[in-house]
Amino acid sequence: MNLVTVRELYRSRETYMDKEITIGGWVRSVRDSKAFGFIVVSDGSYFETLQVVYHDTMANFSEISKLNVGAAIIVKGTLVATPQAKQPFEIQATEILVEGASAPEYPLQKKRHTLEYLRTIPHLRARTNTFQAVFRVRSLIAYAIHQFFQERGFVYVHTPLITGSDCEGAGEMFQVTTMDLNDIPKNEDGSVDFSKDFFGKPTNLTVSGQLNVETYAMAFRNVYTFGPTFRAENSNTTRHAAEFWMIEPEIAFADLQDDMNLAESMLKYVIRYVLENAPEEMNFFNQFVDKGLLERLNGVLNSEFGHVTYTEAIEILEKHNDKFDYKVSWGCDLQTEHERYLTEEIYKRPVFVTDYPKEIKAFYMKMNPDNKTVAAMDCLVPGIGEIIGGSQREDDYEKLLARMNELGLKQEDYQFYLDLRKFGSTRHSGFGLGFERCVMYLTGMGNIRDVIPFPRTVGNCEL
Amino acid sequence: MNLVTVRELYRSRETYMDKEITIGGWVRSVRDSKAFGFIVVSDGSYFETLQVVYHDTMANFSEISKLNVGAAIIVKGTLVATPQAKQPFEIQATEILVEGASAPEYPLQKKRHTLEYLRTIPHLRARTNTFQAVFRVRSLIAYAIHQFFQERGFVYVHTPLITGSDCEGAGEMFQVTTMDLNDIPKNEDGSVDFSKDFFGKPTNLTVSGQLNVETYAMAFRNVYTFGPTFRAENSNTTRHAAEFWMIEPEIAFADLQDDMNLAESMLKYVIRYVLENAPEEMNFFNQFVDKGLLERLNGVLNSEFGHVTYTEAIEILEKHNDKFDYKVSWGCDLQTEHERYLTEEIYKRPVFVTDYPKEIKAFYMKMNPDNKTVAAMDCLVPGIGEIIGGSQREDDYEKLLARMNELGLKQEDYQFYLDLRKFGSTRHSGFGLGFERCVMYLTGMGNIRDVIPFPRTVGNCEL
Repeated sequence: MNLVTVRELYRSRETYMDKEITIGGWVRSVRDSKAFGFIVVSDGSYFETLQVVYHDTMANFSEISKLNVGAAIIVKGTLVATPQAKQPFEIQATEILVEGASAPEYPLQKKRHTLEYLRTIPHLRARTNTFQAVFRVRSLIAYAIHQFFQERGFVYVHTPLITGSDCEGAGEMFQVTTMDLNDIPKNEDGSVDFSKDFFGKPTNLTVSGQLNVETYAMAFRNVYTFGPTFRAENSNTTRHAAEFWMIEPEIAFADLQDDMNLAESMLKYVIRYVLENAPEEMNFFNQFVDKGLLERLNGVLNSEFGHVTYTEAIEILEKHNDKFDYKVSWGCDLQTEHERYLTEEIYKRPVFVTDYPKEIKAFYMKMNPDNKTVAAMDCLVPGIGEIIGGSQREDDYEKLLARMNELGLKQEDYQFYLDLRKFGSTRHSGFGLGFERCVMYLTGMGNIRDVIPFPRTVGNCEL
Repeated sequence: MNLVTVRELYRSRETYMDKEITIGGWVRSVRDSKAFGFIVVSDGSYFETLQVVYHDTMANFSEISKLNVGAAIIVKGTLVATPQAKQPFEIQATEILVEGASAPEYPLQKKRHTLEYLRTIPHLRARTNTFQAVFRVRSLIAYAIHQFFQERGFVYVHTPLITGSDCEGAGEMFQVTTMDLNDIPKNEDGSVDFSKDFFGKPTNLTVSGQLNVETYAMAFRNVYTFGPTFRAENSNTTRHAAEFWMIEPEIAFADLQDDMNLAESMLKYVIRYVLENAPEEMNFFNQFVDKGLLERLNGVLNSEFGHVTYTEAIEILEKHNDKFDYKVSWGCDLQTEHERYLTEEIYKRPVFVTDYPKEIKAFYMKMNPDNKTVAAMDCLVPGIGEIIGGSQREDDYEKLLARMNELGLKQEDYQFYLDLRKFGSTRHSGFGLGFERCVMYLTGMGNIRDVIPFPRTVGNCEL
C-alpha cells in the first residue's frame, strides 16, 4: 500500500503540506462532538502522534466516533499546518477506512499502566509510549554497534550458540538435547548414553563466544560477535536474564590500552548515535523515566574516562568501608555497590578499573609481571556499575597451559585455543558488552525485563 | 599499537607512499637468497597481501628467513611503489619483530587444501584465501541487511531463542533443560516433572521468530528479526544445518505484493552492497569457486523478478515431468529440482511463485477468495532454489481460529496471536530469508558447512 509514514511527515513536512496523503495507523484516542471529531493516531514509525480531524459529512461518521483505543485505520486527507496548536500539523480527513476494530476488553487504555502490569501482556506492551521508546532505541543501539565496528573494518563473526564446551566454566548452563526426557537412553553402567543424542555428545547453550571468536581475530585481526548468550543462574534480580545479547570484539596486535580505547570510543559512538537519531525518545526518558539521563550521557561524551588500578581502587574504597554492606579488602571481587561508588561518587564519570588479582579473573587473561595480577579491565558507569569487562589475553603457550593446569582445565578441551599460541601468536585483547545493560544505561530503564521484548528469567518463559 | 592496515595502504596509497610505516600480520610465505628475502604478509584487513623486502643488514636476518607459514610479525619500513611488479607497492623493511613463531606442524601450508580437510580445523581455516573471502562477505551481507532495513525505518526486534511454544509445529526441536539427565524428576504417574525445570515447563529452541515479531509489527508497523534459529532435523545434506541465522521482516498495512517488492529490493540491495564493498573477494569466487557468479548476480540486479502462480507453475512443470525424479501435479510441494528448473531453465532469473495450496502451507497464511490457495510466496533463485518464503498473514480472527481448529492447534497456546486480530487487526505480511542460503547464493559456495564459522550438523558440534 502506498502510505506515508508519520516520520516522513515530520521529517519532510514541506513535501506533503496541503497535499492529499494517505496514512495507516492505530487509534490512541477519539474525541467527537456533534459535527466533527479528532482522532490521535500512532503509526509506529515515529514517537510523535498525528491528529486527524473528521466530519459528519462522512458516511461512517458514527462508526468512527465509536472506535476504541487500538483500532487500525487508514486515513485519506489533506495535511494542513496548525500554527496555533501544539502539534505542527494535522490531517483534514476525507475518508477513513476501519481496517480492524479493537474489542472493548483491549487491555491498554488511555490511562497510565504500571510496568509490572505491562509485563503481563508482552505481545501488546510495545504499543505504549514507554515501550515504543525503549524498543526503538534498542534497535538503534544494535545498529549503532554494527555501524561502529563495520566502519572500522571489523568482521562480524557468528559464533555458535550450541556448544560442546563450557568456555570459562562460567555459571550454570542450559543443556540442549533431543533425547526423550521420559526415557533417557542409558549405558550399561547406568550413565546417560549421549551417543544417542543429536550431536552424539553432551551439548549446551553458550555463555560466551570469546574463545571461538579469538580464532577469527587471529585470521582477520579485528572481529566482533553480536549474538545471544545464556545463563541458567537462579537469580531473580532486576539485572539478570537467562537469555541476553552480548557484543564481544577481539583485536589482534593490541594490548590492554588499545582495548580500553576501543571500549571508550564505542560507548561514546553509541551514545552520540542514539542522541542524534532518537531525540524524541531520549527526551521522553529524561522527562518520565530518569531525570538526570541526558545530563549524564552528555557528560560522558564530553569527558575522558577515568583509569585506576584495582589495587588503587581498593585503597580508595577502604576509606569508605563504613558505607558498604560488603567491606572491601585486596583480593575481594568488587560488588555493584563498590563499582557504583567509584564511578558515581569518586570519579563522577565512567572509569576503567585495571589489573585485577588473577584469582578473581578468568584463566585466559594475561599475567602481569608482578605474577599476582592480570591485564584485565572493567568499565564502570554511573547508574549501572560494570558495563564492560575485558582483558589482554595470555598469548604465551606455556604460561597459558600452566594456568589451565593450576585450575584443573583439561588440555584436550582447549587444544584449539592453545593452538592459537603455537601458530603465529600475537598480543591481542577483547571485551564483552552486555547489550541489555547498555540499553538500560542509555534509556534509564531500571529492570532488564523492560528492555527485552520477551524476557526469559527463572520460572518465566512466556510466548 | 599504532599499526597501518593493508586495507588502508591499498585504499589511500598516496598518504603512505615513501613514508615510514609499521604493519602487523601473518606470514603467508618467505623466500630468501643470501643477502635479502621476501615475505608475503596478510593482516586480515584486506584480501590482497603485502610484500615485505628485508636484508641481511638486519641482526635477525636468519631468524626471519627460517620463519614458517603462519608466524606473526610486526614490520617497520618504508612503503615504495613497484611499477614493474604485479603488486603495486612493497615495504622495504628496516626492522622485523617476530611476535609469535609458527610451529613446524602448522596444518596450513602454501599448497591448496581441500574444503573437506579445512573443515577439520575450523579454528584455523579462516586464515586461508577461500575462508577469508567467505567470512568477510558473510559479515558484509549481515551488515547490508541491517543497513537496508534501518535506512527504511524498520525496528530490529530480538525475538526469543528459548521458547515454550513450537510456532508452526515445524520440524523437530531441541529441548532446553537444566534438569539432571541422569536423574530426571518425575511425577507420581511417572511423567517428567517439568515444575522442577528452570522455567517450570518444557522449553525448546525456536524454529522461527515470526509469531513473536508479528506482535511488534502491530506496534511499530515495519520490523525485522535477525537471529539464530534451530532445527533438529536428522538430514545430512549440503544445505541443512541444525543452527542457522534467519532474517524475518514483518510489515503492517501491507499485502503480498508489498511483501514481494520488499524481498526483491532487499536482495538487490545486498547484492549491490557486496559487489561494491568486496570486489576482490567476489572476483576470487568468480574465478575459483563458481565461474558464472558475477554474470548471474549482475543479471539479477538488472532484471525484474518473474511472477507466476503455483497453479501456472505446475502447468509449466508438468510439461517437463520427464526431467524430474519426483513428478509434479497440482497439490504437491515443489522440490528443489522443480524450483531450480523454473528459475534456471524457464525464467533464467529469480522468480516469485505465489498462491500455494493451503494444505502445503502454514496455518497463519491468508486464505485466498478461492478457498483453496493462500497468499503465500516463495522466491526462487538460480543455483539455490527457494531462498525466501513468505506470505500475507490471515488477519481475520474467525478465519484464523477456524483454520487452527481444522489443524488441531490449541487455542490457548496461540491466544496472544489471535489477540492481534482482535485489537486493531490490519493486513500484514512478512517473509523469512535463510541467512546461510543467502551467503551461499552470493559466494557460490556449495556446502552450508563452509559458510558457517563453526557449523552444527547431526553428529557434529566441534568447538
